[in-house]
Amino acid sequence: MFQESTAEAWAARFGTPAPEGLPDLGRLLNHRSVRDFTSEPVPVAMIEGLVGAALSAATSSHLHAYSLVSVQDPARRREINQFCGDQRQVAHAPWFFAVCADLNRLVSHAPDPAMPDAVDTVEMYTVACVDAALAAERMVVAAESLGLGTCYIGALRNHPHEVRRILNLPDHVFGVFGLCIGWPSEENFPRIKPRLNPEQIWFREQYPAQLDVQEFDARMTEEYARDGRDEGVPWSARMARRASLRGLNGREKLQEFLQAVGLNRR
Amino acid sequence: MFQESTAEAWAARFGTPAPEGLPDLGRLLNHRSVRDFTSEPVPVAMIEGLVGAALSAATSSHLHAYSLVSVQDPARRREINQFCGDQRQVAHAPWFFAVCADLNRLVSHAPDPAMPDAVDTVEMYTVACVDAALAAERMVVAAESLGLGTCYIGALRNHPHEVRRILNLPDHVFGVFGLCIGWPSEENFPRIKPRLNPEQIWFREQYPAQLDVQEFDARMTEEYARDGRDEGVPWSARMARRASLRGLNGREKLQEFLQAVGLNRR
Repeated sequence: MFQESTAEAWAARFGTPAPEGLPDLGRLLNHRSVRDFTSEPVPVAMIEGLVGAALSAATSSHLHAYSLVSVQDPARRREINQFCGDQRQVAHAPWFFAVCADLNRLVSHAPDPAMPDAVDTVEMYTVACVDAALAAERMVVAAESLGLGTCYIGALRNHPHEVRRILNLPDHVFGVFGLCIGWPSEENFPRIKPRLNPEQIWFREQYPAQLDVQEFDARMTEEYARDGRDEGVPWSARMARRASLRGLNGREKLQEFLQAVGLNRR
Repeated sequence: MFQESTAEAWAARFGTPAPEGLPDLGRLLNHRSVRDFTSEPVPVAMIEGLVGAALSAATSSHLHAYSLVSVQDPARRREINQFCGDQRQVAHAPWFFAVCADLNRLVSHAPDPAMPDAVDTVEMYTVACVDAALAAERMVVAAESLGLGTCYIGALRNHPHEVRRILNLPDHVFGVFGLCIGWPSEENFPRIKPRLNPEQIWFREQYPAQLDVQEFDARMTEEYARDGRDEGVPWSARMARRASLRGLNGREKLQEFLQAVGLNRR
């Protein structure tokens, strides 16, 4: 699994031959979200290595503005999954982490509690979300380098008050997303999923006046058909629907939660 | 460069011997921010590979809520660096990318322009920042796997209106951070920088009642002394200062910008 060469992964990802001179990038183009895991346990020393990788990611101004909370107790895992859309990968993954934006550490250890008076700004919220994501992605790459599969769980944001209660999160901490880790099941190992062509996401010098998503819409329509999910709605329309209030699954209330815990206020 | 074994990198990072059974994680624990680059160019095919890696990262609901804008024109690079604190790595890096949270793509291609009516929510802003960071970190790991060095530039947020003007960014797009890429200069290649011990960032089952940063404060005081930067102020106090209004370098105005471009409004 994850065995495609970089050139093969490129072709599967973008629907075009790999460019001349593409370097060998190991498994970095081979990512897929894995939702079916075997029951084989993942040794703690391996997870320690993944956390070591996470901690080795860059952190803005050396703030370490994130925390990881692993949820292994079966009852607690079931409870958190109730508030994450009850997903099979959350139920069965050998490891589950809540990846948290965390500004509590710097508030609780300030020499003067009044000093970090900008902790409630959008800037600090942004820093903490970015820190959390950088750490998590290095952790995911580390997992994949060992043959492990992963799946991010955005649904951790569906019920932030409940997640806060279950994980005992203090003020200035927010569960941004979950992360499932385990050995991928061979039989349901997913294909490499298409992505926008590099030309449609990497712009030279300035943002272009026109974007082209037609080629990608066509490619995704084929992909939906392959998965039996072709509802006659192109990718671009699905994405617009996802960014509508009815596509948000209650997450339009996120700001109320953040403000209540002292984040993203101004 | 980046040549430490995983166990050596662990010891440098955390000040403790590597745990028993730590797996080999290649260069994933060896990250450092590189600010001094040689003038050797980085081939475009290599950058294409890095962008291919970025695009292979997970993206929330398949939204692709980010864009990369490379700034290579010398005059434009100088101009953007004026608004990024005039930093040597921005001036001299063979490649500079503005990594953008981007919800314009889904707005501009919606079948009904009224459909993505949640694009201005905190949820969608969070999705876009996380998407941008996941892509960027996979790009950074890819760069490091080839021996390239990188440096994130948070100062891209100092003057978001200017960045928007220089890069011609439309509404619903925001330059979250910059990313410098190039071949590290051998003579100024930095040490591996200490991080909080895993026990202080990875919590089991619940967030703890008490955090311990004393050990890390002590370790960082040694590190500051080694760099001639010991001002008698421990790490925890420096971080609290960074999260104060005087530490924000004007970024307390970020919310005003985001609201003006239709992001993070509610």
